Amino acid sequence: MPEASANIGVVGLAVMGSNLARNLASREGNTVAIFNRSYEKTQGVLDAHPEAGFIPASTYEEFAASLQKPRTAIIMVKAGAGTDAVIQALTEVFEPGDIIVDGGNAYFPDTIRREKTVRESGINFVGAGISGGEEGALLGPSIMPGGSDESWVTLGPILRSIAAVAEGEPCVTHIGHDGAGHFVKMVHNGIEYADMQLIAEAYDLIRRGTGKSPAEIADIFAEWNTGELESYLIEITAEVLRQVDASTGKPLVDVILDQAGAKGTGAWTVQTALSLGVPVSGIAEATFARSLSSHPEQRAVAVNLPGPDNAFTVTDEAAFIEDVRLALYASKIVAYSQGFDEIRAGAAEYGWNIDLGAVSKIWRGGCIIRAQFLNRIADAYADNTDLPVLMTAPYFAEVFTRAQEAWRRVVIAAATAGIPAPAFSSSLSYYDGIRADRLPAALVQGQRDFFGAHTYKRIDKEGTFHTLWSGDRTEIEAEDTH
Amino acid sequence: MPEASANIGVVGLAVMGSNLARNLASREGNTVAIFNRSYEKTQGVLDAHPEAGFIPASTYEEFAASLQKPRTAIIMVKAGAGTDAVIQALTEVFEPGDIIVDGGNAYFPDTIRREKTVRESGINFVGAGISGGEEGALLGPSIMPGGSDESWVTLGPILRSIAAVAEGEPCVTHIGHDGAGHFVKMVHNGIEYADMQLIAEAYDLIRRGTGKSPAEIADIFAEWNTGELESYLIEITAEVLRQVDASTGKPLVDVILDQAGAKGTGAWTVQTALSLGVPVSGIAEATFARSLSSHPEQRAVAVNLPGPDNAFTVTDEAAFIEDVRLALYASKIVAYSQGFDEIRAGAAEYGWNIDLGAVSKIWRGGCIIRAQFLNRIADAYADNTDLPVLMTAPYFAEVFTRAQEAWRRVVIAAATAGIPAPAFSSSLSYYDGIRADRLPAALVQGQRDFFGAHTYKRIDKEGTFHTLWSGDRTEIEAEDTH
Repeated sequence: MPEASANIGVVGLAVMGSNLARNLASREGNTVAIFNRSYEKTQGVLDAHPEAGFIPASTYEEFAASLQKPRTAIIMVKAGAGTDAVIQALTEVFEPGDIIVDGGNAYFPDTIRREKTVRESGINFVGAGISGGEEGALLGPSIMPGGSDESWVTLGPILRSIAAVAEGEPCVTHIGHDGAGHFVKMVHNGIEYADMQLIAEAYDLIRRGTGKSPAEIADIFAEWNTGELESYLIEITAEVLRQVDASTGKPLVDVILDQAGAKGTGAWTVQTALSLGVPVSGIAEATFARSLSSHPEQRAVAVNLPGPDNAFTVTDEAAFIEDVRLALYASKIVAYSQGFDEIRAGAAEYGWNIDLGAVSKIWRGGCIIRAQFLNRIADAYADNTDLPVLMTAPYFAEVFTRAQEAWRRVVIAAATAGIPAPAFSSSLSYYDGIRADRLPAALVQGQRDFFGAHTYKRIDKEGTFHTLWSGDRTEIEAEDTH
Repeated sequence: MPEASANIGVVGLAVMGSNLARNLASREGNTVAIFNRSYEKTQGVLDAHPEAGFIPASTYEEFAASLQKPRTAIIMVKAGAGTDAVIQALTEVFEPGDIIVDGGNAYFPDTIRREKTVRESGINFVGAGISGGEEGALLGPSIMPGGSDESWVTLGPILRSIAAVAEGEPCVTHIGHDGAGHFVKMVHNGIEYADMQLIAEAYDLIRRGTGKSPAEIADIFAEWNTGELESYLIEITAEVLRQVDASTGKPLVDVILDQAGAKGTGAWTVQTALSLGVPVSGIAEATFARSLSSHPEQRAVAVNLPGPDNAFTVTDEAAFIEDVRLALYASKIVAYSQGFDEIRAGAAEYGWNIDLGAVSKIWRGGCIIRAQFLNRIADAYADNTDLPVLMTAPYFAEVFTRAQEAWRRVVIAAATAGIPAPAFSSSLSYYDGIRADRLPAALVQGQRDFFGAHTYKRIDKEGTFHTLWSGDRTEIEAEDTH
């Protein structure tokens, strides 16, 4: 058995795992034990990175023996049944007080379940969302760990050592207990879906409205990236749009099949929001837009449905592009506001004490949605930790004051031209809905009371009421059946 | 022990259960055994309805003894743990070949689980969606039973005897095995959410655009109910809008609190659609509109967000109202098309052989979404059982040809005026998305390949590709990670 010389271990050495192990090894004070189900891969990583000083193990027993106490291991395997098998194996060789971290994209209810099971053995289980892809894993990801306070004492310094740094602060914070980290990572991904869809709609509208080429639109995005929209996703959009396909000489975006894939985290975000009663329409529309695109057999028959007669032409191109920029920013604020609303509701539901400002700060670096704009969210929660809805913070209200007429013009242009803009449109509908002083939800309540005796409340007195619709239509006080 | 004189039994005698029992008893050939956890309620139903000839039971043993074989009992208790307890109790006193029907609003995965468990004892378990509320239960509901073919031999004639009748046909059909019935009932309810929200948006736009009173708008809905929009929901909307509150003299809709409740079936429908990869944006927006309305603490701070400067006034009222009617019809077709898409996908996923035309026919009577228009859906599937997307059927395509410009004008009016129309807008976005010959999903795929090496497909050749974005930006063939 090896001596216990490593302070951290990594299980699972595919690209994400080996990159994370290399990142850990490159930071002062870390000695990294590595383990993979097949030793061949372990040997490959050892050979390729002698500078890392990895401590290899060929069995779980050896792996455990190579770790100092409390033993701390990060699992980097594909989320699912494989994760349970690794957790089980580690539980057998670890001791009370040790720490098992799942760094995969686990669904947070699985993390809650696993934490509960592992806790019985006295071992700490930490679900940690890690964002930033392969490059982030190697150079500095944004890390969202859940788990116990006890685990954080050991784990905190290690994770701080490898996280991205934004404005001098490491992009990691202890999110909350058990599944809190994976919950926040899930919402991060949902927001990412919305952000990408909004960018795609902005591109489509500009292209169809002005006839500009992808390369010209790349310049527009590059320009936007110097202002309030500055973000990683805007930056890489410019890169993608500028790319020329070598085999055809066409813009790459024109030879890519227009069917977007998904790995399920967007759907999880919306499903969870529905259970929590939080409207996340921007994320939902983005998720639906991907699934709509991926049904070619439906699109093939629907392509003949009638659209507007007139071609779409924009007269003042510069003004239109600026309108689209403002519509993108306003819609983006809605998407983030809805996402933070979901985190707030999730924290209340699951008893997590989540610092929303801290969440926005650890997203400023390392992760896919990193953006300048997250500082404004941090400011908003610093001013008012109990903000009921993020987008009402003064900074964002000012953006809406500047942007709302432009946003309306863009939604109108899309509807007029027959260009799908589901995320722009739904964000505007949400905006107009939440600021409405009176909603036709009152009619919905009337209908529900009519056909199902679901009762209603009144604006002018306490209590719950029912109209005897199939009787004499008088109103009675009723038991609340909501 | 009583003699086995009843051919059908009902367990659970709250309003829905007692009404269903009375409905059963009123049809020739049925003798109905009744049971309730507290005998007091059984006695009450007995006393109130001597004409029904109910056979009461005070224990499950007595209840079982009073039923002819194969014993057939319909459970009408609140969905949830109570249902499991009753199923367990019946399983103990029933025998192989007997039939237990759950007539509550169970979540279909629960029904699948229960069918599997009960089947082990040789007893048939049938999850049956029953729509139509209290009145439907008494006079004739629309019934959506799942379960085995064997159970249908006995159950079919009984359910046909009590179902609503539409154009001479009973509103019941054997939907498919295990959870198929509750699945279809779930989607029915999801469509109901969308239909109600669309009506609410139509009302709101007409009211704000023309200043007409609820009573005047009731006349408009009553008029619409004589044409292609004819449906129960349009009919009761006119009734609700016409209702005057006795205590204030105001229209009732103006004194009802504008916070819409929900019992979860809309959320289930959307959650399931997300798992199946089916975009049901109309149902989602309707569900979100209810949850948005029910957060007064958020609305209270958001009410100050800026809206359009100008007041909303419609110049040609009659033309605007006709536009709204057409927008409502077009959006409604989208919502139903999305709902049927979900049923088709659910059937494929769970191995149910569901006749979509038959589903539309049993919704023509008894249920909340009953409508003239369902005949057109039946026609569409009669012409082409493999229709990939319902709204492309010739009849609906013709409606879009008539309606699409009006629909656009209404969405534009809402965006201009700052009136939330999330279901109208999202339906139009879906329409323009599914008929688009090219979507910006290609850009989304490019982004995904850039930050996560998720790969993409090309329009011009087979295979899966990845651009080496952080390398020399050449393209390589890659393993498909979707």
